[in-house]
Amino acid sequence: MGPELSLNTITVKSLTLAQCIEACARHGIPGISPWRDVLQAMGVDAAAKHIRDAGLKVTGLCRGGMFNLPGAIDDNRRAIEEAHAIGADCLVMVCGGLPAGSKDLPAARDNVRDGLHAILPEARAAGVTIALEPLHPMTCADRSVLSTLGQALDLCDELGEGTGVAVDVYHVWWDPDLARQMARAKGRIAGFHVCDWKSPTTDLVFDRGLPGEGVIDIPAIRAMAEASGWTGGVEVEILSNHWWAQDPEAVLREIKARHAFC
Amino acid sequence: MGPELSLNTITVKSLTLAQCIEACARHGIPGISPWRDVLQAMGVDAAAKHIRDAGLKVTGLCRGGMFNLPGAIDDNRRAIEEAHAIGADCLVMVCGGLPAGSKDLPAARDNVRDGLHAILPEARAAGVTIALEPLHPMTCADRSVLSTLGQALDLCDELGEGTGVAVDVYHVWWDPDLARQMARAKGRIAGFHVCDWKSPTTDLVFDRGLPGEGVIDIPAIRAMAEASGWTGGVEVEILSNHWWAQDPEAVLREIKARHAFC
Repeated sequence: MGPELSLNTITVKSLTLAQCIEACARHGIPGISPWRDVLQAMGVDAAAKHIRDAGLKVTGLCRGGMFNLPGAIDDNRRAIEEAHAIGADCLVMVCGGLPAGSKDLPAARDNVRDGLHAILPEARAAGVTIALEPLHPMTCADRSVLSTLGQALDLCDELGEGTGVAVDVYHVWWDPDLARQMARAKGRIAGFHVCDWKSPTTDLVFDRGLPGEGVIDIPAIRAMAEASGWTGGVEVEILSNHWWAQDPEAVLREIKARHAFC
Repeated sequence: MGPELSLNTITVKSLTLAQCIEACARHGIPGISPWRDVLQAMGVDAAAKHIRDAGLKVTGLCRGGMFNLPGAIDDNRRAIEEAHAIGADCLVMVCGGLPAGSKDLPAARDNVRDGLHAILPEARAAGVTIALEPLHPMTCADRSVLSTLGQALDLCDELGEGTGVAVDVYHVWWDPDLARQMARAKGRIAGFHVCDWKSPTTDLVFDRGLPGEGVIDIPAIRAMAEASGWTGGVEVEILSNHWWAQDPEAVLREIKARHAFC
């Protein structure tokens, strides 16, 4: 049983990790999922201690992946160490887009598969679940050639033990095959992220809505996750130029208030 | 055997249909695919005569669909009449997004199915192929709840005679299941549209690239289409604030020059 609510730190990206930890405790948010930049800025050991002292559950570390970039394997191994150090439930994988100048999507997907095979032994040894996160197809060129839940589960089938999927409703809500794939994910959901699809959406990356601001039937997708054994509540991950411009305290209050929309 | 190259009129949307017809003839572009607004502005009968006199093949009429809007069925019936009048190979269907205020995606999809069943008798009687065009998942909320080629083919399976698919590389290039679905589309491809995915893309609708400007391996997808029996060449459909701001003559020259990227 995971925490009912977790804060992905990018949601309030003007805050340091220390401030996020303190804010979670103060607002009664029992879970946290840091990004690596704020984790490294605080220092991994200090962060691990503060998070433990605050009694927060670490629902994930964002993020490994980006296998299209040079040095990706070594960087993913460091991410696995960091995830282990802070006791994260999983390392969320944003697998990377096309290499610069390439139009070869099948090759990019093969490269992701190879990269995952390369890092999996370290992940298993560290007890860190590799959570494959399919990203919305509009990010295929520059962020993730892993685009659907079905594709992620195919990879899990191949990779086996120590892998799972991170389901973000923003990335999967449109999928006509969603119900079937969510059932197929039984026992393999390693993270459940929420935000909302605003209509219209004005930016391909930084215009996500808080739960209830958009058109996603979040409770319906959450019910699918729970039918597949997920008990970890929701992690709120909002990349939004609009919300980033607001007072973080107000954003945290909104997140608490909008929990009813999840 | 269709024309090797066809101009979708929205690519040069500052031109009237009469100007588009004249430009196709002058630039040696043997096919045309008008949008309904420019067709209606010219008058359907006058347009039909001018297109015939210019010796152009009509590769499609854009567009029917939008079943989420009031009056959609009657409007689609008018579109079928127009497609018949200009001898269009097909009526391209952009099926519509969620109804205003709705989060019920399954219901919106059922409504699309019902709408297609309603208009199919008229389409068959008129000899107009209904070309279901899956649109990129980023348009699911506001333009098309039909998001994948597999989903479109499932509908074709159900609807039967008189239906097919319009494949636009922009909408399908990211799909991990593309090769399988393109093979499944054998004999059912009713249109093949090209443009390119720019990386980064700055607008969800109006930032498409000309062939070669982006990351899509267009020849690879075209080869899949031809392996499935498609002989109709490529229809160039570019929705782009950038290209719309250029001299249409320059855009037409670019289209001719970039045909090698298809």
